[in-house]
Amino acid sequence: MTSPLSTLVNHQVRLASRPVGLPTAENWHFGTEAVAEPGDGGVLVKTLALSLDPAMRGWMNEGKSYIPPVGLGEVMRAGGVGVVLASRRPGFAVGDFVGGGLGVQEYFSAAGDEVGRSGLAKIDLRLGTLTQWLNVLGMPGMTAYFGLLDVGQPQPGQTVVVSGAAGAVGQTVGQLAKIKGCRVVGIAGGPAKCEWVVRELGFDACIDYKAPAPAGAAHWDPVKDGLRAHCPKGVDVYFDNVGGDILDAVLARLARGARIVICGAISQYNATTAVQGPKNYLSLLVHRARMQGMVVFDYAERYPQAVAELAGYLKDGRMKSREDVVEGGVAAFPEALNRLFSGGNFGKLVLQVARV
Amino acid sequence: MTSPLSTLVNHQVRLASRPVGLPTAENWHFGTEAVAEPGDGGVLVKTLALSLDPAMRGWMNEGKSYIPPVGLGEVMRAGGVGVVLASRRPGFAVGDFVGGGLGVQEYFSAAGDEVGRSGLAKIDLRLGTLTQWLNVLGMPGMTAYFGLLDVGQPQPGQTVVVSGAAGAVGQTVGQLAKIKGCRVVGIAGGPAKCEWVVRELGFDACIDYKAPAPAGAAHWDPVKDGLRAHCPKGVDVYFDNVGGDILDAVLARLARGARIVICGAISQYNATTAVQGPKNYLSLLVHRARMQGMVVFDYAERYPQAVAELAGYLKDGRMKSREDVVEGGVAAFPEALNRLFSGGNFGKLVLQVARV
Repeated sequence: MTSPLSTLVNHQVRLASRPVGLPTAENWHFGTEAVAEPGDGGVLVKTLALSLDPAMRGWMNEGKSYIPPVGLGEVMRAGGVGVVLASRRPGFAVGDFVGGGLGVQEYFSAAGDEVGRSGLAKIDLRLGTLTQWLNVLGMPGMTAYFGLLDVGQPQPGQTVVVSGAAGAVGQTVGQLAKIKGCRVVGIAGGPAKCEWVVRELGFDACIDYKAPAPAGAAHWDPVKDGLRAHCPKGVDVYFDNVGGDILDAVLARLARGARIVICGAISQYNATTAVQGPKNYLSLLVHRARMQGMVVFDYAERYPQAVAELAGYLKDGRMKSREDVVEGGVAAFPEALNRLFSGGNFGKLVLQVARV
Repeated sequence: MTSPLSTLVNHQVRLASRPVGLPTAENWHFGTEAVAEPGDGGVLVKTLALSLDPAMRGWMNEGKSYIPPVGLGEVMRAGGVGVVLASRRPGFAVGDFVGGGLGVQEYFSAAGDEVGRSGLAKIDLRLGTLTQWLNVLGMPGMTAYFGLLDVGQPQPGQTVVVSGAAGAVGQTVGQLAKIKGCRVVGIAGGPAKCEWVVRELGFDACIDYKAPAPAGAAHWDPVKDGLRAHCPKGVDVYFDNVGGDILDAVLARLARGARIVICGAISQYNATTAVQGPKNYLSLLVHRARMQGMVVFDYAERYPQAVAELAGYLKDGRMKSREDVVEGGVAAFPEALNRLFSGGNFGKLVLQVARV
């Protein structure tokens, strides 16, 4: 941070073309540009770490969604944390730690209106580490908090099921549901994740959707069988991060009046044919249940309340977090992102871009 | 009604086997038995008219649902209206008109506990005709009232779309939504139904899902195009009676915060492969929308309130009703039922069993 700004080079990852199926190297363009002085009312931020999220796949597609797509040639959209190197904006001083929409680049330099759009805000490292600010105290945590509590509305004693249980959103959903007095069953891929979710996070059970069939098994459906075993009274709240067959399996096990929170559908994001619709959706009728979508940005005004509550749980030890930190800077972004779609990450996936 | 009870013969339609796909003649058994004197606390009712409902198809299937299936060999379940011929039950007198679960038979004779299970209640012909008591003032009307108002929660000025618009539930949903100040767009099959829905019932528009492509049309999707034309601000409430492709088309046109009421899915009831799941369900996420199932029986305690309100609209002319009455008695039941699945009925389908 002692270099003069004019000597800094900003390595960036831009969207070169729109993927069909899983993103490949040719969808990305690596570029460099000089670091610009911040514009009027702006700041210059050095990126320290970036959040890699399943939602990024959707932002790469053309067409209307809850947020405009990333334009071809633009720096890929990403949330991140960093440190202020220069400021022409009241409330931001050199050396402040900040979080917001920094993009997949080493430096975020912006004028005032762009800073506003990026949602840049100071972060307090007494409440959580830098990577926790991308996890429990960041978008995944906010998504978990408002999705579970506002949309899912779990009551003490009810059964909450969450898919992607060891992932960023899932880990907070499950622990928060336990804190609120629910029985919690996770769904995750592989014994390591399932064991961590139960032993470390305190879930009541975790179903390994990748579990291999025992030798000689005539019938094998680990999710269906696991739900039957672990949710004898049915599922009151299902927090869905994955869609596909797992959503259908849970639909078949709903309790009366169940709430399904549609947060994402990672199993479908790289589909090259039509999305797999939930063929068991008429279970909503049989069980007087509802399925409801949510977008975390709608709750922005209430983030401080959620951050305060979640930081309290981190402090008193009732909530743990796990981040899977990939080294290698922005050059490692394309490969790191794709780990989300194979389930290769264990915990919130973070790309380390620089050290403080 | 002057014949001694002992000389009466009860013609009945029983479920002989469970259908695969559309019910056929072999799924039904026609039988006769002597009319029994009512048991202790029971009544004997002469069936005048029966309600034919899409839900009947579901009751013919094995397996758990919101109500037990009709057992093989049992009289087919049906709601109906009739007149009391004999009574051993306080509150029911000979000559009273009643409605309830009479079954597909000419006489309903039951002891006290069975009368309770059938939901038998007196009906007041000053509030509506016998067939209106199977329509607006009966189960279809109750379904429309609570599904629209409690689950759909339409606000004045919002756009409400209803499929099966000329059917039993749809006609009341649309007119009630108009009374509540909404813009209402129906979806129905054929120009006659669409014209009736707009001209007679006052819907703002009706989309003919069976409309043939104009000569030379390169592209033809009447539902998609119709929704775009008639719902420029998107769909706030969709009351779904049909499922399938129409549900997907509406999902693609939701307004933010939309509510989809899952009342039925007639397009799927005779499917011999897996139900077609709504492949556009992630639109719930994009639009922060919800899809919720409902079963009318849950609202039984509030039926009197709904009947009073709807009867008021019938009286002051703000609500009209149309019943499609099939003659021929219980022998005509199998063929009449199947008209529902081809869209061959126009209005609430009723089977006339006897005259008063």
